[in-house]
Parts: sequence; C-alpha cells; structure tokens
Amino acid sequence: MHTLTEIQQIVASAIDKLDWSLPPHGLYEPIEYTLRLGGKRLRPCLTLMAADLYDAPLESAIPAAMALEIFHNFTLLHDDVMDHADVRRGQPTVHRRWNENTAILSGDTMSLCAFRQLDGIAERHLKEVLRRFSDMSIQICEGQQYDMDFETRSDVSIDEYMEMIRLKTAVLIASALQIGAVLADAPGSDADALYDFGLHVGLAFQLKDDYLDVYGNPATFGKAIGGDILCNKKTFMLLTAFRLADAPGREALLRLLNDNNSRPQEKIQGVTQIYDNLNVGRHCIDAMEQHLRQALDSLERVQLPAERLAPLRDLANRLMQRDK
Amino acid sequence: MHTLTEIQQIVASAIDKLDWSLPPHGLYEPIEYTLRLGGKRLRPCLTLMAADLYDAPLESAIPAAMALEIFHNFTLLHDDVMDHADVRRGQPTVHRRWNENTAILSGDTMSLCAFRQLDGIAERHLKEVLRRFSDMSIQICEGQQYDMDFETRSDVSIDEYMEMIRLKTAVLIASALQIGAVLADAPGSDADALYDFGLHVGLAFQLKDDYLDVYGNPATFGKAIGGDILCNKKTFMLLTAFRLADAPGREALLRLLNDNNSRPQEKIQGVTQIYDNLNVGRHCIDAMEQHLRQALDSLERVQLPAERLAPLRDLANRLMQRDK
Repeated sequence: MHTLTEIQQIVASAIDKLDWSLPPHGLYEPIEYTLRLGGKRLRPCLTLMAADLYDAPLESAIPAAMALEIFHNFTLLHDDVMDHADVRRGQPTVHRRWNENTAILSGDTMSLCAFRQLDGIAERHLKEVLRRFSDMSIQICEGQQYDMDFETRSDVSIDEYMEMIRLKTAVLIASALQIGAVLADAPGSDADALYDFGLHVGLAFQLKDDYLDVYGNPATFGKAIGGDILCNKKTFMLLTAFRLADAPGREALLRLLNDNNSRPQEKIQGVTQIYDNLNVGRHCIDAMEQHLRQALDSLERVQLPAERLAPLRDLANRLMQRDK
Repeated sequence: MHTLTEIQQIVASAIDKLDWSLPPHGLYEPIEYTLRLGGKRLRPCLTLMAADLYDAPLESAIPAAMALEIFHNFTLLHDDVMDHADVRRGQPTVHRRWNENTAILSGDTMSLCAFRQLDGIAERHLKEVLRRFSDMSIQICEGQQYDMDFETRSDVSIDEYMEMIRLKTAVLIASALQIGAVLADAPGSDADALYDFGLHVGLAFQLKDDYLDVYGNPATFGKAIGGDILCNKKTFMLLTAFRLADAPGREALLRLLNDNNSRPQEKIQGVTQIYDNLNVGRHCIDAMEQHLRQALDSLERVQLPAERLAPLRDLANRLMQRDK
C-alpha cells in the first residue's frame, strides 16, 4: 500500500500533466489558473486511497481522480461567480482576474473536461462510474440551489441545513471514495461502506468549518474569522443559536445580524458573545464528533484488515483536528 | 421508415415526458421553462432520422436525442447570460425572468442532466457515444470562446469565422446524426459521412441565418431585421463587406458601425446599402450553396439506397430555402 504522501505526489504529478496549452487560450488559461491555485487535492487522493485498499494499479484510478478534481474546481469557480467572491486561496477569482463571461464559459468547459476524463476509465466500469458521477454532479447543484434558497429564508431547520451540506459538499467526498473502490473491483458492500464513510467525513468536515469560522485561530486557519457571521450565512452555528435562544435572545441575534451600521468587528464580537452564552460551539463539535463516529463505524463495514484501513481512519481524525 | 412528422411527434412526446417536478423547484423550473420554449427540435430529430435509416428501434435513440436537446438548450441559456439577451423565442430569458445566479446554476444542471441521459444508451455504444458527446460539447465551448474573442478584434478572417461557426453550431448538428447512426450499428464510414453531411448543413444554415438578418422577410423570419448589424456582429456578411470594399468603402463602413448617434434604422439602412453595392448577399448565398452541395455529396457516401436518404436530403434543402 502507498503512503498518503506518495498518493499526494502521484495526484499532484497527474494534475500537472494535464495539458491546457491548446487554443483558444482565453478558454483554457483560466482553467489552468484555477487548477494551479492548489489545495490539498483531498478528493482525488481519496479515490486513489480507495483503489489502493485493494492493491489496484493506481494509474487505473487516475482518470476518475482527475475528473473529480476538475469537477470540484468547476463548482468552486461558478460558486465564486454566484457569491461575487473576490478572492480564492489568496488569489483573485477568475471573474475578477478576467471577467464574468470567462468565468461562466471556462467553468462550463471544466465541467465538460471532467466528463471527458472518464474516457480513460476501464470500459467494464464505465456505465456505473458515469451514472454515479452524473448523479453526484446533479446533487451538488441541488445543494447549491438549497444554499442559495436559504439566504432569503428565516425558518431553515438544522435538518434542512444538514441535507444541503450533504448534497453540496459531502456527496463528492463520498463518491470519490466509492468510485475508487468500484474501479478496483471491490465488493459492492465495501464500495457502499466507503461511500457512507466519505459522507459522514464530509458532513463532519463542514461542521468543523462552521465552528472554525467563529472559534478558529486565524493564523493557522487560513481564513479571517467571522466571515460567515458577517454575511449572515446560515451555518450550523447560527441555526443552533436560533434553536437554543429564547425569544429575547433571538431578537437580540436578529438585531445584530440586520444592523448595517455596526463595524464588522462589533458584529462578530456580538454574535460570538451570544454563541458563547448558548454554548453553540459545544453543540457543533458534538454534531461533528457524532458524524466522525458514524464515519469510523462505516469504515468498519469494509471487509479488510484494520491496518489496511488505518490511513483512511487517520485522515478522518486529522481532518477533524485541524486548526484548533 | 418514419416520416419527419412522425419523428417530430416522437421527439416532442419524449421531451414532454422528461420529469422536472422534483425539488429543489428553484433549480428545475427554469430548466422546464427553457425546454418548453419550443423550437423545431432539429437536433434530436436528426438523431432519430439517422437511426431510422437503419430501421433501428427509435426508442434506442431517444436517450441520446434527449441528451442533445437538453445540451443544446443549456448552451442557449448560458449564451443568453453572456450576451445579456432579454428575449428568446419571444419570452424573457431565464436571467430576466428569474436572475443571473439561477441562469448559471440551472444551466449547469442542464448540462449535467444531458450526460445523465446517456445512461439510457446501449452499453456496447456507451464509450464511443460518451467520447463523441464530450468532444462535441467542449468544441461548442471553444466556438463560443472564439465568438467572444472576435467581438474586440478588427482583423477576423473569413476562415476564422467559418471555423468558429463550425465549432459553435455545426458540430452539434453533425454529432446528432453521427450518434444516431452509431446507435443503429451503422458502418463507421456511414456514420462519418452523416457527420460530414451534418457539418456542412450546419455551416450552410448559419450562413443563411447571416443572410436573412439583412435580407429576410421579418414577417416570416421570426426575428427583426438587422439585429446583427446593430450590434456589429462579425458575420459572414460583415466580414465579406470588409474583404471586398476598397479603403474608402471600409472607412465608410467603420464610420457607420461606430456611430453611436445614428438611429437604428439609419444604421441598418446604411450598412445594407454598402452590402447592396458590394453584392455581399450574393457571396453569402454562394457560400451557403457550396456547403449545401458538399452536404449532399457527403450524403452520397452513405451506403444506402437514395430513397432512404431522401428525407435528409429534403430536410437539408428545406432548411436552406426558409423565409425568403
């Protein structure tokens, strides 16, 4: 079996080998720019890790891994357009560096290039992988739609929120693992167990993200604190605060959120104080830990020796401990 | 063999059966709206006509036909966003009726739904059809990129223009026919010949479109006259005028195009007068007829009796004779 570092290097090398040099350059330069923004490359690594569980040749999983990474970055590109974001990973977003039409069209092209990668998959797996990849991609759009719908609603429940993040972010992580297992000719029950593992890891990951937006260490977190608070984003933290607060507490919270005159730091501090009072952070960490436990339980259903599954187990644990 | 009318009815019925009723409705309502805008459904009809040449059961070609129609409408949706168009087929564009984020996300979803349709293809053809569909979809984006690039260039050649319309509009028509033939287990040389037929039909169709923008009959054409002239669109007509005019003629043309104070009718009449003087329309019709001849020559390479190919031949001829 390969170490995570070896897999990361294989993934980085494969991404580097993707050729975006053909014309029209106006179409492909923004794609290359987007993919070179970097990141952990978590999703393609998960595909290779899943294939590696069965000692499948990792090259056989590269095309699908590339498809997932390209598709993931397409969703970030279009999300940035829809959110009017100026920066991603410390660099200008594509619509800022070029223009909005470019962001739309190059994004469209990335999505299609992802499907083009699937031609590299072993033909015996193509129907199943295409179907899973297609379903996943549509679910991600549904999640994004719910996220946008929630912006203008004041009655979003925690269950609805969890369903939104399941679709928007968790199914991609789940599918990355599942597809890796399918390509390795794993038993269906193993592929399903890995999917569930990935789903719960994805949910836990987002809950951790919501927590760190409030209580993270800006030096290690890589993002400013309170960004979600400033744009009134419906996160687990905010929705839990509304759930736990009494009527006066909810009114106080709403006043803070709707106050366009307060300075950003005042708003962040005010909301954080309410979160402190209600122990919202504890509920968020509890929910995250519950999903981590469910992830590890799912991993136990994979019919392989525990030491084979150790890298995935460790990865799940490390993702939850980041940046505290 | 089926008549074109029977095929149109089968296509209309299949589009009608597509189910967009699941939530989130904010995502799927604009998709249903877009598909219900109507139109000739040319591309899915071509797929079925190609399959019909070989007496393949038309149901086997429906999923691919739906994929092509959904994909085609996705490109129109995003093109309208990038062009800031207000109206399509007499109705508000999606970003006008809803908003731009909806147009982007619902468009993304349509593109993905097109690929999801391919799951209904016979497995033995899936790899080939997926590859052809993927290549086609990327080429369409490349064509759109060139079209956008041309807006800010004053040195676009006729060859570049023809390459742009080949990618942007002709490869979809070509692929629709080719894929229908592949699904019917046609000989590869037949599928290639049908592809070439479709390519030349697509090019001729666009040239006719360019001509009708200037010389069409508004009552029968369905669009106002001179729209391309008003927005300085680089069409075959405009590029030919620049090619044929002497230096004073080019200056006169540029003055008309860059005059922001003239009334629309004045600009259209002025440019049309220059086109009249240079006989630009004749060049456009000549180019169109050349591609129509090449289309019919390609059709001759299909190894089937002439009467089998008659509906396609007639369709090509009718597309060229519209709205005069």
